[in-house]
Amino acid sequence: MSDEITTFSPSYLRDFTMQVFLHFGISKTDSALASEVLSLADVRGIDSHGVARLHTYFEMLTLGRINTHPAIKIVREHKSVCTLDGDNGLGLIVGPKANAIAMDKATEFGSGWVSVCNTNHYGIASYYSLKALERDMIGWSMTNSTKLVAPLWGGERMLGTNPISIAFPGLKNLPIVIDLATSAAAYGKIEIAKRKGQPVPRGWIIDKQGEMSTNPNDMIDGGALLPLGSERELGGHKGYALSAMVDILTSVLSGANWGPFAPPFALRQEIPARSVGKGIGHFFGVMEIEGFMDVTEFKKRIDEWIEVFRNTKKAKGTDGVLIPGDPEHQEEAIRRKEGIPLLPAVVNDLIDISKRTGIPFE
Amino acid sequence: MSDEITTFSPSYLRDFTMQVFLHFGISKTDSALASEVLSLADVRGIDSHGVARLHTYFEMLTLGRINTHPAIKIVREHKSVCTLDGDNGLGLIVGPKANAIAMDKATEFGSGWVSVCNTNHYGIASYYSLKALERDMIGWSMTNSTKLVAPLWGGERMLGTNPISIAFPGLKNLPIVIDLATSAAAYGKIEIAKRKGQPVPRGWIIDKQGEMSTNPNDMIDGGALLPLGSERELGGHKGYALSAMVDILTSVLSGANWGPFAPPFALRQEIPARSVGKGIGHFFGVMEIEGFMDVTEFKKRIDEWIEVFRNTKKAKGTDGVLIPGDPEHQEEAIRRKEGIPLLPAVVNDLIDISKRTGIPFE
Repeated sequence: MSDEITTFSPSYLRDFTMQVFLHFGISKTDSALASEVLSLADVRGIDSHGVARLHTYFEMLTLGRINTHPAIKIVREHKSVCTLDGDNGLGLIVGPKANAIAMDKATEFGSGWVSVCNTNHYGIASYYSLKALERDMIGWSMTNSTKLVAPLWGGERMLGTNPISIAFPGLKNLPIVIDLATSAAAYGKIEIAKRKGQPVPRGWIIDKQGEMSTNPNDMIDGGALLPLGSERELGGHKGYALSAMVDILTSVLSGANWGPFAPPFALRQEIPARSVGKGIGHFFGVMEIEGFMDVTEFKKRIDEWIEVFRNTKKAKGTDGVLIPGDPEHQEEAIRRKEGIPLLPAVVNDLIDISKRTGIPFE
Repeated sequence: MSDEITTFSPSYLRDFTMQVFLHFGISKTDSALASEVLSLADVRGIDSHGVARLHTYFEMLTLGRINTHPAIKIVREHKSVCTLDGDNGLGLIVGPKANAIAMDKATEFGSGWVSVCNTNHYGIASYYSLKALERDMIGWSMTNSTKLVAPLWGGERMLGTNPISIAFPGLKNLPIVIDLATSAAAYGKIEIAKRKGQPVPRGWIIDKQGEMSTNPNDMIDGGALLPLGSERELGGHKGYALSAMVDILTSVLSGANWGPFAPPFALRQEIPARSVGKGIGHFFGVMEIEGFMDVTEFKKRIDEWIEVFRNTKKAKGTDGVLIPGDPEHQEEAIRRKEGIPLLPAVVNDLIDISKRTGIPFE
């Protein structure tokens, strides 16, 4: 297989993605929504969460593992808060709808908080927090996911990489966009190191005995990722606690499968022996800025925050402080002009989908 | 000075603390509240935030730096959210009152979110999340504080240790209590290492050039703490982002001084040259469990979460996984029986207060 990168326009990939969802009988509105979420990941340079995942969605849909016509419903509610059942729909559809409910609640009650069960992987966490900015709101988004991470002092996988996103709008500056997995490193980085035959930094992984390792195979063969902070001395208990927070808000509170019981995203992943709820879980929180402070005043204060932090004295040997979201904003500016670069393996996956569905590709 | 530890009953220290606040003309209700917050820190073994801080409060009150009769008021509000001006009161009084507003809002609207400006240090973050549990609510608490932490790739102090707390109630089990500073290590640990003439682990601090150091003096003499994650490779950008989130929710949103402009807690700390708002900031969020799920069902699910995580396979060479809050629960059980052990330096501070106020001590 060649190592050559092929570049596609964002709209071409987005249209292809939409056709794939339509192929399974998903409505036009929902297909557009799901392809919008996937596309934003590619545009913002979060390659692991864009069309690179389309083949997995395709497989799950082909096997009927995901409900193409979910009857999403509120199962419990009190003004600004509610629990939503996603009826085993695509997370790419359930997520945006749950987030919209949180935003509508924020318009009515100043804030909205939605815990979601019976859903599936929802793409990048920051899609949702960025959506809230369009309505001058501060948006929080979290999801649990298949187990990959060990709690501190544990010797097995118990938690997903459980991301947290929140975003804040500037007036002249691009928004501050926080979007972080609560693990020390992403699983994708372990796979890349394995492929290259290279060690990983100490602090990323443990082997199946729970001992620190730098050999990526030790993690892949029954080991685990470490939480943010890595070890006790550097605050590994904090990353574990943050991951636990995400797990509880998304999945204990909503009635989803929490911790090690979260069902897998991909077919090749192990299916948990027990179920303690429905599907995986998300959590969305939205606060209306206007309820706290004049929106323009807040945005000006964010602008000044950004400028002050950007002007922090540089640590020796570095280019200085970035603002959360900077790398993705830069990538977005480039990719909207120059297109989305795809690895041959991803292109081959898309060609495979094309062959099996008849949807033209290239 | 002797190294001998003296032990006091929690109620004795709490009464003494209350007398000190009363001495400054603070009302009986407010003095009781403030001493309750400080006392809980001692009882839960968070020694740095209990009576060990009373002398600093005493100095600030003596110099008239804190308003003993604050007219706390809501300056902006929309149903579930509001901004509160603490009128430069003790954080130990403003904090509990703001938290009570958040809880009342949660009763009325399902959730309550209060951003607070013009306040001062509020004690332990988990005091507030634990309070919410008494009303079957999930409570979040955050505060900013005097600059000590460098953003990743920065060579100077720009952020406080900005803690996040959230707690979840069990039915038979003690609650899960998350309370973490977003720095890799606490400042107190650097001071202890300096006193003992010992190095600190790599990843805790930088010197004034922004370079990693293990010499505690390098941090104290113009260096900084590192955020959780420590360096780029281990996720230092994530700890910085979490600290930024706390800074913005507590202080940009409320109109308080954010980032490097947060005024100091203690007299010996540098006063920022600029002011961008009023005092420091807190943020409280409370969600009514009942709005999402039957409370008993939720507590049972938390019980099971606790039991499953406690039974995680142990990492080799460790005692296994703890539940967030375990160390503090254990300490509380001991200290409620055996009393609060105080270092001679703390006892001397209390004796000094006693001499200067006439309030009897020992």
